[in-house]
Amino acid sequence: MSRSVVAAMTAYTLELREAEIKLNQNESPFDFPRALKDEVLARMAQRAWNRYPDFESASLRTAIANAYGLTADDILVGNGSNELLAATIGAFVGPGTPVIFPRPTFSLYEKLVTIAGGLPIAIDFEPDSGLLPLEAMLAAIAKYENAVVMVCSPNNPTGSVLPNGGLDALLATNAMILLDEAYGDFAKAGLPALHDNVVTFRTFSKAWGLAALRVGWLASTSANCREIRKVKLPYSLNIISEAIAEAALANREVRDRNVAYILSERERLFRSMQPFVDVFPTQANFICFRSERPLFDALASRGILIRQVANGWLRVSIGTREQNDAFLAALKELA
Amino acid sequence: MSRSVVAAMTAYTLELREAEIKLNQNESPFDFPRALKDEVLARMAQRAWNRYPDFESASLRTAIANAYGLTADDILVGNGSNELLAATIGAFVGPGTPVIFPRPTFSLYEKLVTIAGGLPIAIDFEPDSGLLPLEAMLAAIAKYENAVVMVCSPNNPTGSVLPNGGLDALLATNAMILLDEAYGDFAKAGLPALHDNVVTFRTFSKAWGLAALRVGWLASTSANCREIRKVKLPYSLNIISEAIAEAALANREVRDRNVAYILSERERLFRSMQPFVDVFPTQANFICFRSERPLFDALASRGILIRQVANGWLRVSIGTREQNDAFLAALKELA
Repeated sequence: MSRSVVAAMTAYTLELREAEIKLNQNESPFDFPRALKDEVLARMAQRAWNRYPDFESASLRTAIANAYGLTADDILVGNGSNELLAATIGAFVGPGTPVIFPRPTFSLYEKLVTIAGGLPIAIDFEPDSGLLPLEAMLAAIAKYENAVVMVCSPNNPTGSVLPNGGLDALLATNAMILLDEAYGDFAKAGLPALHDNVVTFRTFSKAWGLAALRVGWLASTSANCREIRKVKLPYSLNIISEAIAEAALANREVRDRNVAYILSERERLFRSMQPFVDVFPTQANFICFRSERPLFDALASRGILIRQVANGWLRVSIGTREQNDAFLAALKELA
Repeated sequence: MSRSVVAAMTAYTLELREAEIKLNQNESPFDFPRALKDEVLARMAQRAWNRYPDFESASLRTAIANAYGLTADDILVGNGSNELLAATIGAFVGPGTPVIFPRPTFSLYEKLVTIAGGLPIAIDFEPDSGLLPLEAMLAAIAKYENAVVMVCSPNNPTGSVLPNGGLDALLATNAMILLDEAYGDFAKAGLPALHDNVVTFRTFSKAWGLAALRVGWLASTSANCREIRKVKLPYSLNIISEAIAEAALANREVRDRNVAYILSERERLFRSMQPFVDVFPTQANFICFRSERPLFDALASRGILIRQVANGWLRVSIGTREQNDAFLAALKELA
């Protein structure tokens, strides 16, 4: 018999549908450049696949540290930022630890907290402001000792961000802040300064267009990295994904070009959607909106797959101009 | 501050030394065939790297199921069997759950049990018999309700296996058995029949020579797979490693050739070591032995890296004939 907390959980699922236009997973619409793929794979064919990866992932950690003005001791890399979120929650959340997070947010957080035996405390919020519910989170933190705060900024699925000075306000409470910046490349704020009470998570899955390869990283003080590393599985990043992430960092114009395109399309899409549905301000590569109509199924029947969030809330990823135009045309017809 | 159980842990470490002859990680001495590498990588260059992997890893799970006469619902795949061990312990081990395992064994088990808040119960054993301490494990199981048993067979680092009928005896207790067969390809026993109280773990890292790619799998009843899948992270296997594992399964002669070579060299090495050190019977791709002399450092200074287990116990992986000869020549000189 599995543990009672696990038996009571529902599995993380995804509506599996074939679709011509796939705007449901906040993926980049742009594949990684073919020349870079070929260059890395040619090198990888010559590596010894029978040998374990470098125990410390030193090369990629150093490359990330150099790109962000940090040192390798401040960085951990993993098999997608999911793995690092799980390890960090394993390091800081034990039975009964209160974990405060906005709702709705990335559903994995509550699952990981539940598995760790922590106490999930969801803070509801209205997304119309485009801001995360800082005051309500601060009030919740004040009720507990040793709270852990899980914040996704920009938040999936709403696109909301922490207000200016929000992280400082959270840090003034002495709570441990786990800051998921999976969508940080699309937002104005940069990586925050290192601090003993904050762990920041980033990914190559979104802005870099490398979701298939599963590479994420975290930044924090070296003391925190040492603790999280005790929980993280050894050898969690395969040699090919690691090399591809390094090639990406050596070609930052790939990300910058993707991001510039997405931001331009985001603005256009947002303005074009406004007359038809309630759109929420966003700093991510997706737009959350509300409609009373059964848009999800109607769009799917036209070959356009978006994401159902809850109660009439929907989320559409920013695609190519052509994909966004197809989505807009269908929306105008249906909404 | 990290959790007290984490703060008290020491990090999993590996003696990092450069060595000409690397016999310290139970790797295959043979790289994956270059033609197969090139074929898979050429296909992978054409895939869309910006898209997440298949949510269900259906293709690889089906290929494994077909190879072992099971169905895809009985199989989960992951980023190395480590990931699946962690997820399974997360599904079955909660605060206070007694987890019984032989000692010495793979150090990751105790770490994962500790993180889950379980109660690690180590059963010491003398490796001279070549068998795991079944009677002592049964006696320990009888003392607890809802015990979980963690067995690595063949066991890392001793090479010992469960005696004939050992798994049935364990299953008769109603304990939940987590059976790590990472080295199962090198042993006589095959994958056990599906049973609600056993989860079996396998890997592509050893016999297949794919340690760099991080692919493992587990087999159990579909009901158990559903529970473990709730704990496992989504999208944990990148598309390239998944495709390589499928290519491996389609070319089983690669594994069979590796295994036949290793078994032949294991027998030769075992007999050749016997006059010089105490060797323990093994059914794995390594040999555990005992010596009063400081062999580890002396071998390392000759460019031969093996593994220190504890208190004069050492472990040497089976390499190529030439590597084994170099190890034997040094051993004869030093022991």
